Amino acid sequence: PLCLCWVLGPAAAAAPNILLLFMDDMGWGDLGVFGEPSKETPNLDQMAAEGMLFLDFYTANPLCSPSRAALLTGRLPVRNGFYTTNGHARNAYTPQDIVGGIPDSELLLPELLKKAGYINKIIGKWHLGHRPQFHPLKHGFDEWFGSPNCHFGPYDNTERPNIPVYRDWEMIGRYYEDFKIDLKTGEANLTQLYLQEALDFISKQQASQQPFFLYWAIDATHAPVYASKQFLGTSQRGLYGDAVREIDDSIGKILKHLQQLGISENTFVFFTSDNGAALISAPKQGGSNGPFLCGKQTTFEGGMREPAIAWWPGHIPAGGVSHQLGSVIDLFTTSLSLAGLQPPSDRQIDGIDLLPVILQGKLIDRPIFYYRGNELMAVRAGLYKAHYWTWSNSWEEHSKGIDFCPGQNVSGVTTHTQEEHTYLPLLFHLGRDPGEKYPLSFASEEYQRAVGTISALLQQHKDTLVPGQPQLNVCDRAVMNWSPPGCEKLGKCLKAPESDPQKCSWPH
Amino acid sequence: PLCLCWVLGPAAAAAPNILLLFMDDMGWGDLGVFGEPSKETPNLDQMAAEGMLFLDFYTANPLCSPSRAALLTGRLPVRNGFYTTNGHARNAYTPQDIVGGIPDSELLLPELLKKAGYINKIIGKWHLGHRPQFHPLKHGFDEWFGSPNCHFGPYDNTERPNIPVYRDWEMIGRYYEDFKIDLKTGEANLTQLYLQEALDFISKQQASQQPFFLYWAIDATHAPVYASKQFLGTSQRGLYGDAVREIDDSIGKILKHLQQLGISENTFVFFTSDNGAALISAPKQGGSNGPFLCGKQTTFEGGMREPAIAWWPGHIPAGGVSHQLGSVIDLFTTSLSLAGLQPPSDRQIDGIDLLPVILQGKLIDRPIFYYRGNELMAVRAGLYKAHYWTWSNSWEEHSKGIDFCPGQNVSGVTTHTQEEHTYLPLLFHLGRDPGEKYPLSFASEEYQRAVGTISALLQQHKDTLVPGQPQLNVCDRAVMNWSPPGCEKLGKCLKAPESDPQKCSWPH
Repeated sequence: PLCLCWVLGPAAAAAPNILLLFMDDMGWGDLGVFGEPSKETPNLDQMAAEGMLFLDFYTANPLCSPSRAALLTGRLPVRNGFYTTNGHARNAYTPQDIVGGIPDSELLLPELLKKAGYINKIIGKWHLGHRPQFHPLKHGFDEWFGSPNCHFGPYDNTERPNIPVYRDWEMIGRYYEDFKIDLKTGEANLTQLYLQEALDFISKQQASQQPFFLYWAIDATHAPVYASKQFLGTSQRGLYGDAVREIDDSIGKILKHLQQLGISENTFVFFTSDNGAALISAPKQGGSNGPFLCGKQTTFEGGMREPAIAWWPGHIPAGGVSHQLGSVIDLFTTSLSLAGLQPPSDRQIDGIDLLPVILQGKLIDRPIFYYRGNELMAVRAGLYKAHYWTWSNSWEEHSKGIDFCPGQNVSGVTTHTQEEHTYLPLLFHLGRDPGEKYPLSFASEEYQRAVGTISALLQQHKDTLVPGQPQLNVCDRAVMNWSPPGCEKLGKCLKAPESDPQKCSWPH
Repeated sequence: PLCLCWVLGPAAAAAPNILLLFMDDMGWGDLGVFGEPSKETPNLDQMAAEGMLFLDFYTANPLCSPSRAALLTGRLPVRNGFYTTNGHARNAYTPQDIVGGIPDSELLLPELLKKAGYINKIIGKWHLGHRPQFHPLKHGFDEWFGSPNCHFGPYDNTERPNIPVYRDWEMIGRYYEDFKIDLKTGEANLTQLYLQEALDFISKQQASQQPFFLYWAIDATHAPVYASKQFLGTSQRGLYGDAVREIDDSIGKILKHLQQLGISENTFVFFTSDNGAALISAPKQGGSNGPFLCGKQTTFEGGMREPAIAWWPGHIPAGGVSHQLGSVIDLFTTSLSLAGLQPPSDRQIDGIDLLPVILQGKLIDRPIFYYRGNELMAVRAGLYKAHYWTWSNSWEEHSKGIDFCPGQNVSGVTTHTQEEHTYLPLLFHLGRDPGEKYPLSFASEEYQRAVGTISALLQQHKDTLVPGQPQLNVCDRAVMNWSPPGCEKLGKCLKAPESDPQKCSWPH
């Protein structure tokens, strides 16, 4: 049953807590409820059974940093600056030598939620820049436990420092030093730490009576994949599956905690992932995109369609399934709506409010834009997807064994040169052909009709687009995490080399 | 809760009705509960939620006739004669010029169930031979509504007669003449006829108090795919999806009928399919094998892993999931067990009794043999699968556009020449790599251990194997359905050409 107070409008209802469970490199096909053959995610499957499953939910970019920037700003990366112009259609992110990050001019979800009295916490990976001005607590978060970058390593602290782990304003240690990740066994207890942080924060907030926004951005399924000892070897799927099982178990515990505290009916929970499974790391370190084409880094369905579940007992009818075209950018607008806030009116917001979809089962007509770096590669409207550009990766990279589409090869589609189709887009019907294997005939009436519609949407989008200042162009070893705040107390400050700004190299 | 009477052993319990819902060319990935992205099978998903889902269930052959012969005999096709020696590792079936069929020496499930008082009906496709001696009513069935062959056509009745539709002993018409299939629109009301037959038979049997065995072998998902008018255009997936939706709707009605008659707790229902989705017919006429490799005709997972659901309210705990390695041949043994009968002891039966799995959640250690024609191509034990031969199809066929693995190409695996690996099998771990993309290193300890186990199973199997007389070697236009019994009454007898037996041509 719908919450009666809801009928009175969001403002009249107490603003619910908002919990975003944001996965790293987890693919559409990684959950039992999405057809993973080992079916090892009972808690997520149960969450879907009690909530609403989204089958056509997307990220805004097939790579981590831009996807996260999009979620927190409600804007496409090409607007919020999370892209590069160093090369055409190149994915870019925030390695520790990146100079850029989230611009101050961007309004982040937690900044806005503060106006409605929310206490905001990020647990896990920030990935919107690690230099001081980009710190999450300068962008609306009140608390942080986690890391600014990926948990790559270990590094020698000379050529490259190990990545710091922060608690709030200051670092409290570094990966591989104070926060162990055993690359050989895959053992690390980080998911347990992130779980405990979440449980503690929820308990504390429940006691304080202030609404919370918790952004649980964990990373056990991103290479190097890891799991705690008690989960190692428990999955049929190997180490990657162990990580998924631990996450599934943790999410079960978080949802149970909400129920035990009696606040599940006042907490909106959304589960999704930042991009498709990293098939380059499969099978040991990469997941599954189910029946979809290719993976992370690409604008095929495998790169951008995400598992997604909304859960809010007493508000979302159990067992719902939605074919709404949704996107991570919608989580921004939807969260504001939950808080009774309007999205900013001084800028273009790309996300839509999904509450009518989630609470009333409506379907909202809207396109999905598939960007890769500075290029709009494809557009989906309804069941049709038109590719204006196709590319997996270069022959040069491919010849080194880097393959974003292992075992898959669709002639003229998974191309290794950047192929322009702007005058005659490749068109797929994703209902009949979710795997993007059978382009529609250019001569068909269906093609003409669908491409007409989509190209008009594309034109409208391009005509009004004002790209943001690209943030991911310049790299400099001097900006690495040599001496993060708090390093003095720990005796972990390192000497930075001299500044030597360079164009970042983005091969894909 | 388990039926209490069951504890006393099958013989003490009233023998339950047995209903096998056997699909045609439906793939593992075609059901919502198995991750089909359109999620259009609410009734089958519900059946799974109320019953037990099998994720590792197989057919005995990647083609229709041998698969059906295996189901009804509990024996591998190489034993029951449903294979050819005309070429190495060639799939064969029963087109209407086939001379062979199910040998009298084979004991079929309905023959055996008669001993326990069952009334047996087949609705749909027989496919074990169409000459008089092979008639299903000569092999244990009491009733038949359906056809001996695939619904290919229309034919001109000169070169080739249209396929007859039988009611019991006699034909009552022919496809495309009396039973319309509109190849242009895909419209045919056959599934509705098959549904009504099932409902009527169940009602009649319920009244008679005799247990029934109903083999519902429908074929709307086999090319030419069809659906009734009210289902045309209702699926996101196109015509194939329309057919699936109609089947899903029909199965919902059948299960509801059992419940309304109050016999659902006394009717064991099992849903599965005869082989993987026919990817050569995709996207319009073929389904989905989810994340698996290739399709029908091949011994990769996409060719032989099947969707499977057991349903028996009050006996099978709701929402169960099993990783038991199961096979269509087990439905023979399991059905006998349900009826309180022992399997024949005078011959090798390959099927196992799945009741301990279904009722008590046990796991039984057993291998899966992947045959293609006369060759044992691969063996699965536990999570490991060893390929002793690999082949998709020949370069010659492939160059004509016949592709069993569209968009998929795993180097050295989806080979277009028959590749022998008997001395060094290709080994896959299906948990970590369900898509058979990453063969294990020959040098690894894991490889040595797993191949050792599997090769011992293979040797044991081969050492004791006594192949049956191959039934699918000889074709003759004279044996086509020119004048089936009953044709006189209908004025539908056709003149047969002179006998001209030939070796059948099996290109794959």
